Amino acid sequence: MPRAGFAWPILFQKKNESERYSMATANKPSLPVIKRLPRYYRYLGELAANGVVKISSSELARMMGTTASQVRQDFNCFGGFGQQGIGYNVNLLHEELGRLLFSKQAVPAILIGAGNLGHTMANYFKQNSKGFDLVGAFDIQPELVGQSLCGLTTILDMSELESFCQRVHPKVAVICVPRTAAKQIGGQLVELGIRAFWNFSHYDFRIDFPGLIVENVHLGDSLATLSYEVNNAEL
Amino acid sequence: MPRAGFAWPILFQKKNESERYSMATANKPSLPVIKRLPRYYRYLGELAANGVVKISSSELARMMGTTASQVRQDFNCFGGFGQQGIGYNVNLLHEELGRLLFSKQAVPAILIGAGNLGHTMANYFKQNSKGFDLVGAFDIQPELVGQSLCGLTTILDMSELESFCQRVHPKVAVICVPRTAAKQIGGQLVELGIRAFWNFSHYDFRIDFPGLIVENVHLGDSLATLSYEVNNAEL
Repeated sequence: MPRAGFAWPILFQKKNESERYSMATANKPSLPVIKRLPRYYRYLGELAANGVVKISSSELARMMGTTASQVRQDFNCFGGFGQQGIGYNVNLLHEELGRLLFSKQAVPAILIGAGNLGHTMANYFKQNSKGFDLVGAFDIQPELVGQSLCGLTTILDMSELESFCQRVHPKVAVICVPRTAAKQIGGQLVELGIRAFWNFSHYDFRIDFPGLIVENVHLGDSLATLSYEVNNAEL
Repeated sequence: MPRAGFAWPILFQKKNESERYSMATANKPSLPVIKRLPRYYRYLGELAANGVVKISSSELARMMGTTASQVRQDFNCFGGFGQQGIGYNVNLLHEELGRLLFSKQAVPAILIGAGNLGHTMANYFKQNSKGFDLVGAFDIQPELVGQSLCGLTTILDMSELESFCQRVHPKVAVICVPRTAAKQIGGQLVELGIRAFWNFSHYDFRIDFPGLIVENVHLGDSLATLSYEVNNAEL
C-alpha cells in the first residue's frame, strides 16, 4: 500500500486500465531502484523501436547487467508489471515506466548560467523536453543578457531572478555555473521556491539545504574514472 | 600482488617514497571501487583546499555516505594509505589518489561532434585537462570546419579523421554526436586505434566492440531520475 509522504504514481490510480498487469506487493522503492528506472525505460524504448514485442525478466536482466530476480524485485516496488512465465509486453512496460518517470504536467524549470554548458543543456531540454519546461534562463554576463537561448527563452540578468520567480513559480533549477557561484546563489533560489536542482556544479546543495531534491552530474568524476581505466589497460 | 593484465600503478613502484603509508593486502579493485575513487579524490581536494590536514576513515565515510570499514577496504585495494588509529594525511592521500587516477603523460584524445555539447566538453578539457590532451576535433558541418574549438584545436572535417589518426595516434574519443552517428563511426574509430570512449551518445559501443573502455554519460537518465523524484515529492 502507498505510504504517507510517497505520492503513489499510476498503478493504483488506474487499476482497471492496467488489469493486464498482475499486482504484486508494493514496496517503497530505494534510491538504487529509482536510479535503475531510467535505464529500464531507455532499453525498453530501444527494444520497442526495434519492433520487439515481448521480453522476459532474464533477457532484460542481461541488458541491465543484473539478475532476473533483481528485475522482478525492482518492478515489484511499483506494483509489478508482468505475469509469471509470460514475460513483459515491451510497449506497455515502456509506457508504464514513462508514466512513473515523467508527469503529464511539465514542471517549470529555470537555467542558471547561460554559457556553453547552459546552451548545451538548453538544447538538451529542447530535444528531450519530457517532464520539464524550461521557462527562464539567467546569467550575469552583459553580453549574454537579452539574447535568445536556443529559441527557448530570452536570457535575463540575475537581478531579474526574484521578480521572475515570484511571477512564474519555477520549481527546478538547472545549475550551469561554477561551484562558488552555485554556493552564492543557492540560498536565494531556495528562498524563491526552488526545491529541486539538476546540478552540474561541484557545490553540494544538500550540505546547506538538507531535504532538497538534487541530481548531481559530476562530469569530472566520469572523466577521472575513464582516466583510471585507460591508465590501467594496455592500449 | 599485481596480476597479469593489470598494470599496477604507483605504490609498488615507489614504495620507499610512500613509506609513511602502511601497505595492506592489495586486491584487484572492482568497478564500484574504481568509480568511488574520483569522489574520494574530489572530497579530499576540497578538504585540502579548506586547510584540513588529517581525516579519519569514519569522517571520510560520512562524506561518501558509506562505512569506515568500506573506506578502509577500498584503500586496501590500492595497498592501503593509512596507519591504524592515526587517520589519513589529507594532502598526501589526495596526491596519491591523483597519481592513481591521472597519468603524468597526458593521453591524446579527439572530439567527435563540435556542436554545443562538443564546445562544452572542449571547454571542460581546457579547464580540467588532467590526464588527457585534446589534440583534435571533427565535425561534418561545413560551417564548423576550420573554426577554432575554444582555442584548443581547429575543427576538421570528418574526411580528415583517418589521416589525422595515422599521424597523431589518439587513444581516446569524446563522442558528442547522436546515437546514429556514433554507431556509424564506431567501427572506423576502433580501426584507427581508438580504444577508449567518453560517450555522451546513447549508442552502446560495447555491444559491437566488447573489450573497449567506455565511460558513458547518460544525461537523460539523470534528468529522468530528477523527474521521478520531483513527481513523487510534495514541492
